[in-house]
This record gives sequence, C-alpha cells and structure tokens, in this order.
Amino acid sequence: MLPKGFKVAGISSGLSNKEGKKDLAIFISDVAASAAGIFTQSVAKAAPVLLDIERLKKGGKFFGVIANSGCANTCTGDKGLEDAQYVCSVAETVFGLKSGSILCASTGVIGQYLNISKNNFTEKIELLKTNSGTSSSNEENAVSAIMTTDTFIKKSEKEIVVKNGKIKIWGCIKGAGMIHPNLKGLHATMLSFILTDAEIESAELQKILEKSADKSYNCVSVDGDTSTNDTVIVLSNGQSGTGKLSRDDTKAFIRTFDELTLELAKSVAKDGEGATKFIEVEVKNAKTKSDAKIIASTIATSPLFKTAMFGADANWGRIVAAAGRACVSFELNKVNIYIAGIHTFKNGVALMFSERAAKKSLSEKEVRVILDLGIGNESSKYYTCDFSYDYIRINADYRS
Amino acid sequence: MLPKGFKVAGISSGLSNKEGKKDLAIFISDVAASAAGIFTQSVAKAAPVLLDIERLKKGGKFFGVIANSGCANTCTGDKGLEDAQYVCSVAETVFGLKSGSILCASTGVIGQYLNISKNNFTEKIELLKTNSGTSSSNEENAVSAIMTTDTFIKKSEKEIVVKNGKIKIWGCIKGAGMIHPNLKGLHATMLSFILTDAEIESAELQKILEKSADKSYNCVSVDGDTSTNDTVIVLSNGQSGTGKLSRDDTKAFIRTFDELTLELAKSVAKDGEGATKFIEVEVKNAKTKSDAKIIASTIATSPLFKTAMFGADANWGRIVAAAGRACVSFELNKVNIYIAGIHTFKNGVALMFSERAAKKSLSEKEVRVILDLGIGNESSKYYTCDFSYDYIRINADYRS
Repeated sequence: MLPKGFKVAGISSGLSNKEGKKDLAIFISDVAASAAGIFTQSVAKAAPVLLDIERLKKGGKFFGVIANSGCANTCTGDKGLEDAQYVCSVAETVFGLKSGSILCASTGVIGQYLNISKNNFTEKIELLKTNSGTSSSNEENAVSAIMTTDTFIKKSEKEIVVKNGKIKIWGCIKGAGMIHPNLKGLHATMLSFILTDAEIESAELQKILEKSADKSYNCVSVDGDTSTNDTVIVLSNGQSGTGKLSRDDTKAFIRTFDELTLELAKSVAKDGEGATKFIEVEVKNAKTKSDAKIIASTIATSPLFKTAMFGADANWGRIVAAAGRACVSFELNKVNIYIAGIHTFKNGVALMFSERAAKKSLSEKEVRVILDLGIGNESSKYYTCDFSYDYIRINADYRS
Repeated sequence: MLPKGFKVAGISSGLSNKEGKKDLAIFISDVAASAAGIFTQSVAKAAPVLLDIERLKKGGKFFGVIANSGCANTCTGDKGLEDAQYVCSVAETVFGLKSGSILCASTGVIGQYLNISKNNFTEKIELLKTNSGTSSSNEENAVSAIMTTDTFIKKSEKEIVVKNGKIKIWGCIKGAGMIHPNLKGLHATMLSFILTDAEIESAELQKILEKSADKSYNCVSVDGDTSTNDTVIVLSNGQSGTGKLSRDDTKAFIRTFDELTLELAKSVAKDGEGATKFIEVEVKNAKTKSDAKIIASTIATSPLFKTAMFGADANWGRIVAAAGRACVSFELNKVNIYIAGIHTFKNGVALMFSERAAKKSLSEKEVRVILDLGIGNESSKYYTCDFSYDYIRINADYRS
C-alpha cells in the first residue's frame, strides 16, 4: 500500500513504439513534499536529468515525478530540454500545481525526441490524472509504465513504528540493462522512485539517500554500462501525521530506508537482461572498504566470471584473474575463495572439491561468492547476474 | 622466414589435456641474445611471469623462450615456481646452455600444476630439440603449440634494409580470450614472442618494446579481462651481421617493429573468442592522448556496444553512453560520431541515416568507429571485436 497522501498511475500514451505498452507514469503527492534526488554522473546526461538537477538545486518543495519509457530523451539538445519542460508543465497545469513543482524521468532509446504531439498530450495527462489512485492495480500500472527490458515488477514497501504512530516507505525500480549506476550528489537507465509519508527536510533526505545509494544502487551491475538517464527520486510528504522524527525514530527510518533501497537494487540484478541467476560477490577482510568495493566490482563486471556462472562452472581462476587486475595490492597466499559455499581456493592454492557438487550448487537461482583477502577487516558486497545467450539476443536487436 | 640464427619448434608433450594437441614450443637462438620483456600487471602473476621478471632483472644475455599451452601455472604457489624453474633447467641442459639463460611462458587453465612427470620430461625436450628448425612448418608448429581458444595462427614478419645489409623481425602471438593486456616495465593470457637478428642492447630493446606496446598490445581488448600470464618477449641476436645500428637505421627498426606489434595486436582482436568482426574505435580531437585512450577503451569494452556491433546495429546511443561514463569531461554538442563511414551523430544531435545502408556496412568483417570530440588535437585507437552467442558458448564451458 502507498504511504498516506500519495497517488500513482500508469497509462499507455503512445510515447513508446510498442503499441498498447504502458509508457507514462506519475507518482504524485496531495501536498507539497520534501525531495531528494541522485542522478547519473555520465557526461552525456539526459534532458530530464538536467532538468531535475536544476529544479532540485533551486530547492523548495515538490509534488511529484512524471516518468516515461520508450524514449530516453538523451542527446536531444535544446529541443530535448524544451520537451522535458513541456511534459512537466502540462502535468503541473492538469494537476493544478505551481510551475516547477514536478520532476521528470525518461528511459528507452537514446537519440530520439519524445513523441509528444502537442495537441493531445494534455489529454494523455488528463487520462493519467483520472486513472491515478492508491490501489495495488494503480501501483502495478505505474511501475509497468517505466519498464523497458524488465521482465517483472520491482517494488518494495516497509512500515516503521515510531513514537507517534506509523510511517510507510514505498519504492519501485526499473532496470535490466545498461546497469552499473554511478550516482552521486545531484546526479543511473535505472529509475527508482521512493515515496514516504514521513516528515523529513529535503537536505536530510538527500543525505540519507546518498549514503544509502553507496550500499545499494551503486553496488549493482548488470553489464558495466552506466546509463545516461539513471535517476533516483525520494518524496517525503509528512502525511503520516507523526510529526518531526526523534533521533531514535530517524535511526529506525534510515535502517528501514537502507533495507528498502538494497531490496530494490538487488531486484535489478535479479532481473538483469538474460539473467538466469542472481550473484552476490562479497570481498572480505580487505585493508580498506574502498579496496573491497573495487575488487568486488571488478569481479562482478568480469565477462569471464559471469559466463562461468552461466555455465555453473566453479572457475575460481577467473575470480583470481579479475581480482588481480583491480589495481589493488593484496597477497595471493592469504587469499581464500568460497563459491556457493564450497571452499575452492585456500591461501593461494587450489583445493580439491567435488565438481559435481559445485555444479549442483551453482545451478541454484542465487549464488554467493566470497573472496577473503585475509589482510584487514573491511568488506563490501556487489550484486550482479550471469551473462547468458539471452543477454546477447536482447542486446543484438534491442533498437530494431 | 625466421631471422638468422633462430630455430623454433612445437610438439605435443601431454601438458594439455587435449590429446594430440601441440602444447610445447621453443623459440631459440644459436647465440646469446639481448632480451626485453613486458608482463601482466596483475597482482596474481603466474609462476612463469615471476620467473621471467626475476631473470630479466638480473640482466645478461638469453638464448630462448620455452612456452606451453593447456596449463597457466598460475595460483600454484611455490610448487608452481619450482615447476617453471624445472622446465627451464631441463631445456637449458638439453640444449647445452648455461643455467638461467632460458625464459618461459604458460597459458591455459588457472590453478592446475604443470603435468610434468619428471622422468620423461627430458625426453619431451629432446624431441623439441630434434624437431627445431627454420622451416615454415617449424614456425607453424611452434605457434600452434601456444594456442588455446585461438582459431588461426597469428604471426608476422618484416625486413628492413639498413646501411650494412638486411635485418629481419619475426613475431607471433596467441590470445583470443581474457584479453585486455596491461603490460608495463618488467611485467597479459596474451603471449607474444618477437625474434630479430638485429644487434641491439637489452636496455634499448626494452625501451623500444615498452613504447611500442602502448600503441599496440595495450590497445587491444576482447573481453576487458586482463590475464595473469600475459607475456611479450623480444630476443635480438645480432646474427644479421649488420652490426650496431646507426641512428637512422634504429629509427627504421623502431618504425618496422611498431608495425609488427600493431599487426600482431590487431590479429588478436580479429581472433577474439566468438568474434564475427574486427572493430577499430578511434577517438579524435580530444584534449589529451590519455583522454582519447580512456574513452576509446571504455567504448571498446562496453558489452552494449559490442552486442550492437554483433547485431550490425548503428546504435550510436550506446557509444555516447560509454563515452559519457569514461570519467573524462567533454562537450556533447561538439561530438560527432561516424559508424562504418556513416555520419550518425552531429554536434550532439542525431542525424537521419539509412538504417539499411548502415546494416549493410556493419555486416562487413571490419568496422571502424570514429568519435570526434571536437575539443583538441589528440587521438587514440583501440582494437576489439563484437560480443556474440559464441563468446558465451566458449566461456560457459571453457574449463569443462
């Protein structure tokens, strides 16, 4: 269920080439809300990303996010920015909100203009307004409308009991390819929208989001390709009626917020293009957290590691090779590797293990790989999926 | 034809699991030769790499290189080092050379010990000696013996007319997967051996090799995975009889040497695992050479770019996305992109082009992509191949 004071909708507007596909969504608050956002750090930022960054920089309160699939509105120059502005302004007018109070996001093919025939776009937004609501089918429609190569709806919700009542956090995410978010500050085509009825100032919300992203969104990779459109937006409208959060309640909120972003981020790796399995790579006992994250990320993005996982092959040699090229120094004779619970490599040397048992464990839908460097106390996890024939199929004819 | 004073051989020794496959090669000079070597920068360096680095550091002259396929002798601890040393020492004994005068290299599966049953290994090396010679079938045997997933023999030879006669340079290379060499100083499983009968000091040879590698070996990527075993060794034995090279002759030698390493490096991308086409990515008019190389490398290693190339899809959006995440600043509205001769993107905005013509050009065996940043005068090229179903097939069951 949505947090109090939020409505969502998703409709088929014709922005996508796929006839009948839901392609336009709105996530809207009844009252002005605090907002936080993080965006792709790509030099080639999409028009909606540029618009959101500018609006969030100005500060103030926001009412919602309008998002489309089918067209990324990226590399579209000044016209692209005008189009993004037009989409927001029509939404603001139809919903009776002041100018500049709606944020936007796009995902889809790069380099095409938004197909908004200006006469009937207002009708589409009116349809979006009519269809907006709080039911589970509204939720499903909204999340469906931002999906591209995604194969299932990815959303999560949490409830926190605070001193004066209950707070809800609801979040959704889309993304299956071009996934290797690198989100920072006011800056993945991963789109994620989080709605909460907690009362939190924008500045604090931004801090909570940025910190949370480094342990969730920024630890997911499907293909190592960072998008031009990655966007995470959080709206907090205070409609739970629980008032300003106490210190303890804020801690509880952050804990739960982190759980939610991690669930959402993991769901992207689970739905990675062509993925047959979800893989968690943990690097343990590194000297620094950054060392651990760089090695985990290098393993999680290695095509040779990911194809071995597709083949259910406990090929720890490719894990060592990936770790070795991560530009982080370590001592090979202190390294231990565990694949799907099997100790395959001990203090720098191969261990004998049952290839049959390994094949069986690696055929599960979720696989955990641990690389223990044995030289420190810091650890980091990275989430990814295997590299399959379907990844090639999907991407060799995505645009056509 | 081999340069004067060199013999080579390749035999089936049983080091590889594939029955009858040639798996042991020698490249040997009649007289002591100057030597230069560059090796993988991986933290997880293979035993033969560690041994070569140590021997080259000590200095002096060398007689040859013994190399095997089928087993990488990586992650094999002290025993691995002893095995590498044993292989060299048997070769030194059989060929009647002083201890420490042979270098070695291995490629194949990581984490297995070299299968050298100590009693009959001497016989294998004796067979290698008996079979060594200067004919084209000797060359083919030697190069075949270092191949793993390679599908064709990759070698090149050049002749330079100098003041006092003629010099020959001969080189070979193996490598199809785990290819993204990062070779430096005394430090890819790309193996490349270059033989020349020029007279050049080791120190100068090392400089020439390192400089050449940055424009050739270090500009090739099949899958972005740097190997634990990458090795390039050059032997220069002076047997051309042309004596010490003049300044002009040295320049001619370097020019020809660079041509040879570039040909060898390109041949690796052409034989990339599962590759259906060779791709040259050129980034032009960047502010610095390093900027150009980083962007070219990011595009050349992008799975989304490489699958689009497999699909013969002129998807310039993926080129922009890859360039955008390369952590190099540029201005999108100055960027122009040409794919297989077709201008697809002009000053930040998409151009209309015939998808049919693009599909046809992109179906050629060699494709050139140019990204013109329009903000400087520096350029860099990177060589790669497409990402096909066969890449997945080869690597999902390589070890089994």
